[in-house]
Amino acid sequence: MNTPKSPVAALLNAESIAIIGASNDANRASGRTLRYLLTYGYEGRIYPVNPNRSAVQGVTAYASVRDLPEPPDVAVIVLPQRPAIEAVRECGQLGVPLAVLFAAGFSEVGGEGVALEQELREVARENGVRVLGPNSNGAVSVRNKATVTFMTGLDQDRFELRDEGIAFISQSGAMGGFILNMAQSAGLGMGRFFSLGNEADLGFPEVLAGLLDEGSTSVVAGYIEGIRDGEALEEALKMAYEKQVPLVFMKVGRSDKGAAAAASHTGALAGADAVYNGIFAKYGVQRAENVQELLDYTRVFAAGKLPQGNRMTIVTLSGGAGALMSDYAEEYGVDIFRWDDTWREKIQQVLPSFASTANPIDTTGVIAADLDVLSNSMRIGLENPHTDILMVLLGNMEAEEDDLCQRIIDVAAASDKPVYVSWVGGSGNPERVLSAAGVPTFRDPQQAMKAAAAVTSWTASLGREVRTDTLDAAKPDVIAAVEAVGDRFLTEVESKQVLSAFGVPVVEEKVVETAEQAGLAAIELGFPVVVKILSRELAHKTEAGGVRLNIATVDDAVLAARDMLAAAVRLGIGDAKIVVQRGVDAQAEVILGMSKDPVFGPSVLFGIGGIFAELINDVQIRPVPITRDDARQMIRGLKGLTLLEGFRGKAAADMTALEELVVSFGAAAAALAPHIESIDINPVLIDANGLPVAVDALIELPDRHHAEEAGQKEKTS
Amino acid sequence: MNTPKSPVAALLNAESIAIIGASNDANRASGRTLRYLLTYGYEGRIYPVNPNRSAVQGVTAYASVRDLPEPPDVAVIVLPQRPAIEAVRECGQLGVPLAVLFAAGFSEVGGEGVALEQELREVARENGVRVLGPNSNGAVSVRNKATVTFMTGLDQDRFELRDEGIAFISQSGAMGGFILNMAQSAGLGMGRFFSLGNEADLGFPEVLAGLLDEGSTSVVAGYIEGIRDGEALEEALKMAYEKQVPLVFMKVGRSDKGAAAAASHTGALAGADAVYNGIFAKYGVQRAENVQELLDYTRVFAAGKLPQGNRMTIVTLSGGAGALMSDYAEEYGVDIFRWDDTWREKIQQVLPSFASTANPIDTTGVIAADLDVLSNSMRIGLENPHTDILMVLLGNMEAEEDDLCQRIIDVAAASDKPVYVSWVGGSGNPERVLSAAGVPTFRDPQQAMKAAAAVTSWTASLGREVRTDTLDAAKPDVIAAVEAVGDRFLTEVESKQVLSAFGVPVVEEKVVETAEQAGLAAIELGFPVVVKILSRELAHKTEAGGVRLNIATVDDAVLAARDMLAAAVRLGIGDAKIVVQRGVDAQAEVILGMSKDPVFGPSVLFGIGGIFAELINDVQIRPVPITRDDARQMIRGLKGLTLLEGFRGKAAADMTALEELVVSFGAAAAALAPHIESIDINPVLIDANGLPVAVDALIELPDRHHAEEAGQKEKTS
Repeated sequence: MNTPKSPVAALLNAESIAIIGASNDANRASGRTLRYLLTYGYEGRIYPVNPNRSAVQGVTAYASVRDLPEPPDVAVIVLPQRPAIEAVRECGQLGVPLAVLFAAGFSEVGGEGVALEQELREVARENGVRVLGPNSNGAVSVRNKATVTFMTGLDQDRFELRDEGIAFISQSGAMGGFILNMAQSAGLGMGRFFSLGNEADLGFPEVLAGLLDEGSTSVVAGYIEGIRDGEALEEALKMAYEKQVPLVFMKVGRSDKGAAAAASHTGALAGADAVYNGIFAKYGVQRAENVQELLDYTRVFAAGKLPQGNRMTIVTLSGGAGALMSDYAEEYGVDIFRWDDTWREKIQQVLPSFASTANPIDTTGVIAADLDVLSNSMRIGLENPHTDILMVLLGNMEAEEDDLCQRIIDVAAASDKPVYVSWVGGSGNPERVLSAAGVPTFRDPQQAMKAAAAVTSWTASLGREVRTDTLDAAKPDVIAAVEAVGDRFLTEVESKQVLSAFGVPVVEEKVVETAEQAGLAAIELGFPVVVKILSRELAHKTEAGGVRLNIATVDDAVLAARDMLAAAVRLGIGDAKIVVQRGVDAQAEVILGMSKDPVFGPSVLFGIGGIFAELINDVQIRPVPITRDDARQMIRGLKGLTLLEGFRGKAAADMTALEELVVSFGAAAAALAPHIESIDINPVLIDANGLPVAVDALIELPDRHHAEEAGQKEKTS
Repeated sequence: MNTPKSPVAALLNAESIAIIGASNDANRASGRTLRYLLTYGYEGRIYPVNPNRSAVQGVTAYASVRDLPEPPDVAVIVLPQRPAIEAVRECGQLGVPLAVLFAAGFSEVGGEGVALEQELREVARENGVRVLGPNSNGAVSVRNKATVTFMTGLDQDRFELRDEGIAFISQSGAMGGFILNMAQSAGLGMGRFFSLGNEADLGFPEVLAGLLDEGSTSVVAGYIEGIRDGEALEEALKMAYEKQVPLVFMKVGRSDKGAAAAASHTGALAGADAVYNGIFAKYGVQRAENVQELLDYTRVFAAGKLPQGNRMTIVTLSGGAGALMSDYAEEYGVDIFRWDDTWREKIQQVLPSFASTANPIDTTGVIAADLDVLSNSMRIGLENPHTDILMVLLGNMEAEEDDLCQRIIDVAAASDKPVYVSWVGGSGNPERVLSAAGVPTFRDPQQAMKAAAAVTSWTASLGREVRTDTLDAAKPDVIAAVEAVGDRFLTEVESKQVLSAFGVPVVEEKVVETAEQAGLAAIELGFPVVVKILSRELAHKTEAGGVRLNIATVDDAVLAARDMLAAAVRLGIGDAKIVVQRGVDAQAEVILGMSKDPVFGPSVLFGIGGIFAELINDVQIRPVPITRDDARQMIRGLKGLTLLEGFRGKAAADMTALEELVVSFGAAAAALAPHIESIDINPVLIDANGLPVAVDALIELPDRHHAEEAGQKEKTS
């Protein structure tokens, strides 16, 4: 008991639990934890603390925390707010590693509660005790029967608690309790549960990291409402990724555009939810759309066998069912590969002559009469070296279900490859029996295919580089120059110079002061050229008529520049210059942006330019830093990727150059982020050689330095 | 018995059933129908036919069909192929309205089987008996316990068969049997089942129409693998729509691009599946993505109460659960409207002070202790006149579940508005108890919201005009002119003239023969103009360099025309002329196409022009004729609709004019379809006034007239 324990390990290995404020009434919330510990058979030492009784629910009680015979591994505090805070102080002084607080009435009620929670946090930190809660529904560790919760979801006699190494961290008390109950009801060993409550101390990332550190957890489910510390979450996700512990998260608030207040156009496209999607994609986190999927995905991961790829063989008893499965497979990116002749001949030998030996393998209904047909088909399906996953689709057959299940279990056990089953209709027993035997089984074929796709998606995500040292790319000179700008925005030309210093390819251009110089610059650059107005006071040139594309002659260049300078005079713009850019024979366009997510900080947005990003929100977002693998994943993740691959006779983008572009931009974003507010490159054109070149850019500086000044300028422009 | 019955009504009202070939062995497929009739308690007269026994399974048997004491309403034929055909003949001669054929070995095995099936069909028609099958798994009518099937899905003792007026027509035998079993296991009264088998005679549309005619069915589920007679299906869907009988269909083969061989570019975008989606949308058919949804959707429809709109009030016991529900609502188009102050005050009076009275209404966990809080909140939720649907989200609470269910049932029964429940976790009893009492209840919140969305979607689909008389718009003169064209394609100009005759707005243009005439035409039309080559031999002008846009001067017009005519001479094109078109200041572009779906015939495709249609397949397809309401639905159904609503400073399209465009095109497509192969208008531009104008068009004539000639021309062009 004397070695300091991490709070998570303290629960998972708790040898003693104190219940501070334990009630003798086993039905009250304050009495339930003790009752659950007793009924579920917790084998450690239990110390009820109650100043008024010598025994609580038949267990010897102690008058105060100070009277406890040893510091318990876990102290459950079932007192109201103020006394609870005092109990936390006493637990800390005694050296308790983890205190679980049920009491509500803290920050979630606002006002006074916020101050109380702050006090609680300080007391905990000063006294060296970690707190789960307040407003937590508790925690459960099934392997030692440490059921430190008051959730009535444990008030049942339908199931024995099971633990298959599946942990579940929930930011919602109610949904957490429902889901835990649903999992255990379905025989799914979700055996480690943490209801986070208000997260005054222990937050989602730390509990996740604690589980990974502790080491006995094989898959972690999460129910997320909102992460406070994005960096800590990302560190924990990275840790899970490197330890190859699969994560399955539900996240609510998809429709919430978040608190993002980024000024740049591209930044405005990103809701915070898109950033979650980005880091989930980066670290292979499988996002479940609903409660059932959360359970399904954890089930397939917990079953342990992972596929080498996404090639699936389907064995079914109906051609129609096979067609349905094929639809789902195509939708979710699972490959129902065509069997070659050699293997078709092998499987033909165990099938009736009228069966289909293509994939899906249709054994026909004969398996109800001859069960060997199923096991033989499955065996050959698994032996086929091209099969990564075997999916079996059956239904009804109550008379044969026991025998069929046994055969499926036997065949599956003899193979290293995963076997999943969809059993539609029938008694429901096969779902329970097969799943319990490590063959994940689902009612609905779509459910089964989505779960299989989650596993293949996770497998495919492994082995990528998720760390990078591009932060070392900081360029002090460049940053000093940026900081020296006494305004809200860098000009287009300054912005591109800064980005270029980080390796972002930018268009060749010249800044001149007169129309005649513009003509000369055009000759030097070669036609066609683009002529633009340049002024710190004009952030949106295009709308102001300050951009002329595709200029083919010196006369036109001079004329365009003259018009723009004259217009600037009319508008009272004092600093107007002219930029002449080499024209780009654009084959496609992309956009890049950096904005600061309130949770995850500086994040890079990449998308197809034009209407695509805006209209169907086809963008990829990742917090910095961006590795080469991240860049590749972002590019490949775009729905509009086709537009970059040589669409309608256009040249294809050079994918390597595109990856380098995204990586360089990521390095720039990471290095500049502490000094600026946002970056917007719109567009980056793909030239005739397939190479990207940024033709416009805008770096925004923080508002705080120049709030007043900037406000005035915006009015005039 | 002497009035002729429709085959569907014959089953649903069967007073007598013959089993031809009935086996005394109740476990064999040929013995099971009799066993099921006996065990499920069929109360009509049962006539086993067996030449070798005087009684079968204890029931008096007859030696042959001819010996039967009366023509049975339904004859189940459990004989192999040839004897089965003979039995069909005898049934017809006896005046049996419906024969159900189980035997396989017909068209599904190819070769000989195809001929046998043709013979079967002829025998049935000649002898006036309707056949379900062959290769049918049978049919079930629960209300009279007519279980004429051999499906082992009925081999159970877990449920009593229920009928809530839900019919189910399945093209897959296996999946049909699984789904029927799954429904009945869940207590869902899917009480009328038809396994169609090979559809030698009775097809999906006719069974659907038969159910609608019979009149006692309240909702029809369908499992579709492929419809043969698209027109008949559409007639049946129209009938269901007009009778307001909701339809819920699953359809496999989403990934199948179908047999569409349309030559036109826009037609090529349409897989047959998109046409199904189009007619499902038109007639309000709810397409279920999976088996569970098929059951969920039929459950909410069968419950009977329909919402007036899509405004939902959610009552839950957890803020987190409410947030989750709100996500789903936004995704599926259900409106979680904000409660006004008056009603918030009313509900505040029945809630704890710290509860949330916004919508979702968060009663907090207090309902476990005070069940009245739930019933009072529900009652006020239903009283609020803005509420169309009430959704309740609960979970676990096994101790309180019986009382809670009773309260929910009572409150729901007192209102005309639908009440749905999502009960996550717990014993599963509430799902059964509440659903059985007419309060559809689901495990997963997403499941509940999708089902609610299906109902609101169906409600919203009602009241549209689905019939039109535009077919009367046939213009004999125009059609005669089209038929007189001795080639595979009408020219661009001819195509537009034809479409214009049907009211499609086309661009103003002049056809000339010389460059000088082109200059004069340009002056008459006013600049800018577009100059194009015109030749029957050049279907794809743009690629041949035969289009010059945005010509601003007479000189340029003359030059462009001269270049084109010279190029035509070089290419050996003899019929080259020049079209000069008035330039359109395009604000957006759309495409229209007509191609012939192998199942549904001439179908109109409408989409946003440019990359959108191709890249994200953002098109709407409907078989002709197209009503004004269809046009409106097609336009509103586009993801890229924003592009037509004044995107980025462009003028918005005139929606009335756009609807008229689609209707006119639909009329043209319907009238021309018998005489042509396809139409492609790409693009229709939206001009500065928001009005659509077709600037290019191509009408393709059937290959059969000119196959050889057209082949040669295509090579040269």
